[in-house]
Amino acid sequence: MDPDPAEPAAVWRTLAAIRERVPLVHNITNVVVANVTANALLAIGASPAMVQAEEEVGEFARVADALVVNLGTVTAERAAAMRVAVAAAGEAGKPWVLDPVAVGAIGFRTRLAVELVRARPAAIRGNASEVLSLAGFGGAGRGVDSSAQSESARLAAGQLARDTGAAVAVTGPVDYITDGTRLISVGNGHPMMTRVTGIGCTATALLGACLGVQFDGMAASAHALVLIGIAGEIAAERARAPGSFQVALLDALYELDEATVLQRARIARR
Amino acid sequence: MDPDPAEPAAVWRTLAAIRERVPLVHNITNVVVANVTANALLAIGASPAMVQAEEEVGEFARVADALVVNLGTVTAERAAAMRVAVAAAGEAGKPWVLDPVAVGAIGFRTRLAVELVRARPAAIRGNASEVLSLAGFGGAGRGVDSSAQSESARLAAGQLARDTGAAVAVTGPVDYITDGTRLISVGNGHPMMTRVTGIGCTATALLGACLGVQFDGMAASAHALVLIGIAGEIAAERARAPGSFQVALLDALYELDEATVLQRARIARR
Amino acid sequence: MDPDPAEPAAVWRTLAAIRERVPLVHNITNVVVANVTANALLAIGASPAMVQAEEEVGEFARVADALVVNLGTVTAERAAAMRVAVAAAGEAGKPWVLDPVAVGAIGFRTRLAVELVRARPAAIRGNASEVLSLAGFGGAGRGVDSSAQSESARLAAGQLARDTGAAVAVTGPVDYITDGTRLISVGNGHPMMTRVTGIGCTATALLGACLGVQFDGMAASAHALVLIGIAGEIAAERARAPGSFQVALLDALYELDEATVLQRARIARR
Repeated sequence: MDPDPAEPAAVWRTLAAIRERVPLVHNITNVVVANVTANALLAIGASPAMVQAEEEVGEFARVADALVVNLGTVTAERAAAMRVAVAAAGEAGKPWVLDPVAVGAIGFRTRLAVELVRARPAAIRGNASEVLSLAGFGGAGRGVDSSAQSESARLAAGQLARDTGAAVAVTGPVDYITDGTRLISVGNGHPMMTRVTGIGCTATALLGACLGVQFDGMAASAHALVLIGIAGEIAAERARAPGSFQVALLDALYELDEATVLQRARIARR
Repeated sequence: MDPDPAEPAAVWRTLAAIRERVPLVHNITNVVVANVTANALLAIGASPAMVQAEEEVGEFARVADALVVNLGTVTAERAAAMRVAVAAAGEAGKPWVLDPVAVGAIGFRTRLAVELVRARPAAIRGNASEVLSLAGFGGAGRGVDSSAQSESARLAAGQLARDTGAAVAVTGPVDYITDGTRLISVGNGHPMMTRVTGIGCTATALLGACLGVQFDGMAASAHALVLIGIAGEIAAERARAPGSFQVALLDALYELDEATVLQRARIARR
Repeated sequence: MDPDPAEPAAVWRTLAAIRERVPLVHNITNVVVANVTANALLAIGASPAMVQAEEEVGEFARVADALVVNLGTVTAERAAAMRVAVAAAGEAGKPWVLDPVAVGAIGFRTRLAVELVRARPAAIRGNASEVLSLAGFGGAGRGVDSSAQSESARLAAGQLARDTGAAVAVTGPVDYITDGTRLISVGNGHPMMTRVTGIGCTATALLGACLGVQFDGMAASAHALVLIGIAGEIAAERARAPGSFQVALLDALYELDEATVLQRARIARR
C-alpha cells in the first residue's frame, strides 16, 4: 500500500506506473461503452482487452493484470462469463473491480451483483443509487442516473465495504471512497461528464488499470477518479458541447503529466 | 395531440418538454449504434438506457417513458427480448417505435418485423426500401441503403399506417410522415448524414425521446426528424468530413435553442 | 489481377473503383469496433453491413461483395454465424478476409481460426504474434498487442499463405504481404495508430472493401494497408492525441484523393 494514497504525488506515481508497466486490463463490459473504455485505457497508457465469451474469459482473466466487470447491457450469456472470470481471477490472485450499472432498477442484475460480490472484488464503483441498492439500503435507481446524492450513500458504502472486503467508491459531484474504516474524498470532475454516455464506466475501467499496478483498492479507486476528473475538467475548458467534449476527454487523458496531476488533484483523507 | 404538429413552434415545444421532463428512453438496439444513440439522447436532453436481456427488458420497459426497438444486427436472443419488451410496453401503456433496419434484405428480420408490428408500435421509421418491404410492396433493399426514393414509398407508408395504427415515417432527401390520413413533410437534413453510420438509428432514438413527452406518433416522428435534420445542417456547416461531422452533430443537438428551431424548421402539412 | 499491384497508381485505381462501385461489405466483427469500422467503410466509399445472426449471415454473405470475419470479442454464437457465413461466401464465390484478433493468446479462438482458414479466405491480416500462432509457429500473444516484430513473422506468413491459399498480411511498423511466393512491403502509417483501439480491425475492414472490387488478395491487402497508413499519417499531422486523432483519421480516409495517394504511397515489391 502507498504510504499515503490521499496525496497528489501518490496519484502521479500510479499513473507513471501504468505508463511504465502497461497493465493488461481485461474488461467484460457493455456494448455501449466497449469502444470508449478501450480507448480510454489506451489513452492512459494501459493495454485493454475485451474478451467476453464464457469459453475464453477464464483463461484470459488468469493472464491479465486486472479484470473489470461491468453489468451494463448484461445478458444471461455474459453473466455466465462473469461468473467464470471472477472465479478465475480469484484463483490466480488477480484483482477485479465491479461496476454495478443500474443495480436496484432491475431485479435480474441486482441478484447477479449480489452474487458476484461474494467473489471478493478489490473495488466496487457506482453512483449513489447503485451503492445504496447493493448494500441492501433500497434506493431504487432510474436507469443509470443517480437519484440520490453521493453523500447520502456514504453510510451504505461503508457497510458494503465491510460486508465484501472491497473498497467502495461512490461517484457524484464529490466522490467518496471507503474501505469501511478509512474515507477519501475526490473533488475533481465537471458537470459535462454527465452529458456523455459511459463516463462512469470509463472511470471503472481506469480503476482496473490502477489495480493492475496498485493492489490497494482504496488507492486505485481514488487515483482513477482523480485522473478522469482532471481530464474532464481540462476537456470542459476546451469543449462546450458533448461531442467535442468526448474527444477532448480522450486527448486530456493521454496528455496528463506530472505537473498537471500535482496541481489539479483534489484528493483528501476525511 | 398538439393543435398543429406541423408548425415550427410545435417542434420547439416538444424539445423543451424533453429537456424539462428528461424522459427515460429504453433502447433495444444494435451494437453499431449503441454508443452514438445513447449520446444523442443525452445531447437532446433525454435519459437513455440500453437494457437488452430477455430477463430484464420486460421489467424495464414498464418503467421507461418510451421504448425504441431497432432491428440492426439482431440476433435470436435479442429478437426474443424484443417480443417481451413490446408486450410489456403495450401492457403498461408505454409508446414504442420500430426501426426496421434492412428489412426486405433478409428473411429472418423481415418476418420478425412483420410479427412485431402486430404489437402496435406508435411509430415506425425506415427508409423507402424498408417501408416498401414492411408494407408488403416488395422493394428488396441492399443492406441498409435505400434503393428506392422516399416519395415512391409514400403509398406504402399510408397502407402500413392504416394496417398497423402506427405513424409511419419514410426518411430520405425529404422525409414524409403519415398516419394513413394526414401527411407531413420535413425538408431538413444534409447529404453528409448518409456518410456516417447510424444517423437513421439516431433519428429513431430521438423519435423515442419525443414519444416520451408527446403521445401523438405523427408529431413525435415529424419533430424528431426536424431536430436531427437541423442538427445535421449545422454540423455540415462546421465540418466537411464524416469524422468531424459526427462530433459536430452531437454538439449541435446539445446546442439547439428556440430561435434556431423556429428559424430553420422545414415542416409542412401536405 | 492488376498488372503490377505494387505501384501507387494501382492503389489509386482500387480506391477509385471502391468509390465508383460502392461495394457492399459484410462484417461479422467485434463489439468494440463495430461503429468505427462501419464509419471507416463509409468514409472510404464502401457500403457497410454488420449482419451477425446465425439465422441471417448465410443469406447476406451471398449478396454482399465481400465478407470480413473478425475474431475480436467472439462468442460461441458469433462463431457459429462465422462458420455459416464463410461457407455461404465460398459457395457464392465471394471473397472473404479473416482478422485473427488475439489468436495465440486464447485456445478457443485459436482453434476457431484454424478451422475457419480451411474455408479458404482470400486474405488474412494480423499482427506478428497472430500470424505466427496461426501458422503454428507458436508466438503466444499478449492480448491484441504484437509481442514479436513483423519482420520475424514473414517466414510464418509465407508458410500460412502456402497452406491456406490466402494472401497473408502482417502489419507492424512496416507491413508485409505475401501469397507464399511474392512479397510486397508497405511503409505507410504512424505510431499514433497503436494508441487508438481498432485500427488493425479497420485495416481489415478496408481490406474487405478492396476485395469487393479487386479479387487479387495480395493487391487488396497491400492497397488497404497503404490507404489506412496514409490516412494515419495525415491524421497525425492534424492531431496530437488519440481522441482527435480518431476523428482526423476518418476525415482523412474520406478526403483521400489521387494526388495524395500517388505522392504518399510507400509500397514496393521485395
